[in-house]
Amino acid sequence: MKTILVLGAGRSSSSLIQYLLHNAPVYGWKVVVGDVSEKAAREKIGHNPAGAFTPFDINHVVSSAQSIGSADVVISLLPAFLHPQVAKICLDQGKHLLTASYVSTDIQLMHEKAKSAGLLFLNECGLDPGIDHMTAMQIINRIKQKGGQIESFESLTGGLIAPRTDPENPWRYKFTWNPRNVVMAGQSTAKYLENGKLKYIPYHQLFSRTTRVEVPGFGVFEGYANRDSLQYIDTYALQNINTMLRGTLRYEGFCSAWNILVQLGCCDDSFIVDALENRSQADFFESFLPSGPGTIRKRVASLFNLDDNDEALDKLEWSGFFSDDLIGLEKGSPAQVVEHILSKRWTLKPDDLDLIVMWHRFTYRIGNELKETRASLTCTGESATHTAMARTVGLPLAIAAKLLLTEKLSRRGVQIPTLPEIYEPILAELDSLGIRMSEQEF
Amino acid sequence: MKTILVLGAGRSSSSLIQYLLHNAPVYGWKVVVGDVSEKAAREKIGHNPAGAFTPFDINHVVSSAQSIGSADVVISLLPAFLHPQVAKICLDQGKHLLTASYVSTDIQLMHEKAKSAGLLFLNECGLDPGIDHMTAMQIINRIKQKGGQIESFESLTGGLIAPRTDPENPWRYKFTWNPRNVVMAGQSTAKYLENGKLKYIPYHQLFSRTTRVEVPGFGVFEGYANRDSLQYIDTYALQNINTMLRGTLRYEGFCSAWNILVQLGCCDDSFIVDALENRSQADFFESFLPSGPGTIRKRVASLFNLDDNDEALDKLEWSGFFSDDLIGLEKGSPAQVVEHILSKRWTLKPDDLDLIVMWHRFTYRIGNELKETRASLTCTGESATHTAMARTVGLPLAIAAKLLLTEKLSRRGVQIPTLPEIYEPILAELDSLGIRMSEQEF
Repeated sequence: MKTILVLGAGRSSSSLIQYLLHNAPVYGWKVVVGDVSEKAAREKIGHNPAGAFTPFDINHVVSSAQSIGSADVVISLLPAFLHPQVAKICLDQGKHLLTASYVSTDIQLMHEKAKSAGLLFLNECGLDPGIDHMTAMQIINRIKQKGGQIESFESLTGGLIAPRTDPENPWRYKFTWNPRNVVMAGQSTAKYLENGKLKYIPYHQLFSRTTRVEVPGFGVFEGYANRDSLQYIDTYALQNINTMLRGTLRYEGFCSAWNILVQLGCCDDSFIVDALENRSQADFFESFLPSGPGTIRKRVASLFNLDDNDEALDKLEWSGFFSDDLIGLEKGSPAQVVEHILSKRWTLKPDDLDLIVMWHRFTYRIGNELKETRASLTCTGESATHTAMARTVGLPLAIAAKLLLTEKLSRRGVQIPTLPEIYEPILAELDSLGIRMSEQEF
Repeated sequence: MKTILVLGAGRSSSSLIQYLLHNAPVYGWKVVVGDVSEKAAREKIGHNPAGAFTPFDINHVVSSAQSIGSADVVISLLPAFLHPQVAKICLDQGKHLLTASYVSTDIQLMHEKAKSAGLLFLNECGLDPGIDHMTAMQIINRIKQKGGQIESFESLTGGLIAPRTDPENPWRYKFTWNPRNVVMAGQSTAKYLENGKLKYIPYHQLFSRTTRVEVPGFGVFEGYANRDSLQYIDTYALQNINTMLRGTLRYEGFCSAWNILVQLGCCDDSFIVDALENRSQADFFESFLPSGPGTIRKRVASLFNLDDNDEALDKLEWSGFFSDDLIGLEKGSPAQVVEHILSKRWTLKPDDLDLIVMWHRFTYRIGNELKETRASLTCTGESATHTAMARTVGLPLAIAAKLLLTEKLSRRGVQIPTLPEIYEPILAELDSLGIRMSEQEF
């Protein structure tokens, strides 16, 4: 009997826990879910006899060590900033750790200790980071093996809503992930490589300098650059590349509307606006507009040289930014107010399905020939519980746990899934679960 | 014999020290200049028998206390963040303190102690803050005394170059103050009141939402909003005002060119660019431009929808942003690189003269009549040493010291010059020195 401890029973844990419970009888696993909320954990475990709940609060050092000490492998979905603490306990207790979070410096420094203790600390093994690394490396290694020299790599991923969800919603977007991160997205300078040159895009240009992406069967999307694409040149061993861009995908038209909020400064988190109790959403929004005659809609149109019937204006209006409805907050930063206003219409309803879209484009040279490979992965949520986000974040972790417990992962130390021995078996099983890239060659 | 201790012998101390030395024989003063640099202090003192140098380093607590303890009044031109330390010693030693810096919370908390010790801690007594407060309050109190209700107040000040200085310079601007502050200007959200509504302008809108200002005899200027205009509603006792805006003045055309640097993200101070040794200024600038065909100038023109001969492009080109010249730095944040490039042509030469422009506009209601008062003050530097900046920052402090030592300032505690008993005699003497507002009524 092997014990898997899952830390965190939030939204993205549902498919992970379901997979583990489903496989528990076959492999003789006990699946313990640790969370501060017993209710959240019980909802995920149901009445499955292989499942159990344990109270888990990382601030309680002794009981955290006990919970981790009783497990064979720990899968943590806790917020990334807690992972150095979790990893420290795993080191002390001699337990493997799997996460979907970026490797922090603190975690990286544990590499030698984990390795000599025979432990695997596998991180960045969710969707983004996770499936993006795995699918990219599979294609990169294949191109290299046939003698290709990769010249450019662009990779964009988005957590969206399924085409048939909420047809009235002109943004084609809802919060399927941390809403605050969505509102604050892009607030540090984006850095990437384009045609051999370093490029920087400041926040206020990010949503107007987008990349157009077509995904067969799903139409047109647009992407904005992520914070730092440059570090992936080393991660993917692409040292002679000319163009390296990672970004975030949205449905076409999202960015030009979001850009209005950015341009006006509505996503500012640097100060608090007081006394909001009796202020309307329009009144808040107007604080970011120059004074002048005409309706708010007309003034926004005029400020940004838009037609009065521009779809960007429809999106803002649909979200209630021009509305006399009260905000319903006492105070908050502009970013918090925007999040609050958006959440009124951007919260997933029980029948809503989400959609993950991932898209890679590589150009490479073989001999004198310039070739192009495009690959895309789409995943639609099965339900409001088993969202595409929960499946694509949780299943790679679940599969990695299975591989580890069945002794099919021999690599130790701090790792991310960029090695074939890690990504090949995970991608093979994801494929069997319907999560796979489609490729086109040009 | 009274002793005045002047702390800091930098650029802005020249006119202050000259005034004090000039008046020393009349009033029996000794003028001691404290600085870490004896050379800087000796340059200001010359061979004047009333002047003396003392080494002064605020980190040397004992000798700092000795220097301050030997004085009757301390005038500090040290960086604002050092003023709580200076003020603490002044409290301990029972000495008056005069500065041109904003009152920090630490200083404000010393009010009661200073007051009960019979000490005046007069701050914000330079140009901006300083003459701006004094001239504004004089007009505000006059309007109130004749029964006027002030509806709007806009106040803008700029440190510029004199019309005949550097005629080739299309920006009509050079560094006459801390260059880093010029490059970083506006990087927090501007807050002000307009027609009864709170307004916020984010950094990236600041240089496109400017206020046009005409100064009789000096032509057209443009101003951008300062960080926080709202706090001056209380400072000036204008609680029922509808519009309250404070800002910074530049010659017309400056802001649209500076806006290009802001829009592109060139003034970003959040990351370091390495390996600049062999990179040209154009190459650096191009990092902030999307790739594309054509010269840098043409690509900037196209990105911002400008004519190819737009004057904003001329300004950037004159500053060398499109030039193949090497930058001449090893590394630096974009803001540091921009400061370095600009300083090559924006440093004052020995024959250059600077210019201070301050402009106020009030609208007020008397009975049913809406009236407007415009007031402006211009001050041209006398030389590269006795700049307009040094005169307008230093002379109000010097005059305040004279008033204090001749027992014409009886107010005690932490103060700023918004009370008639403080600003009236200072403004009267500034007037006699040629520094005065001209007013127009509409």
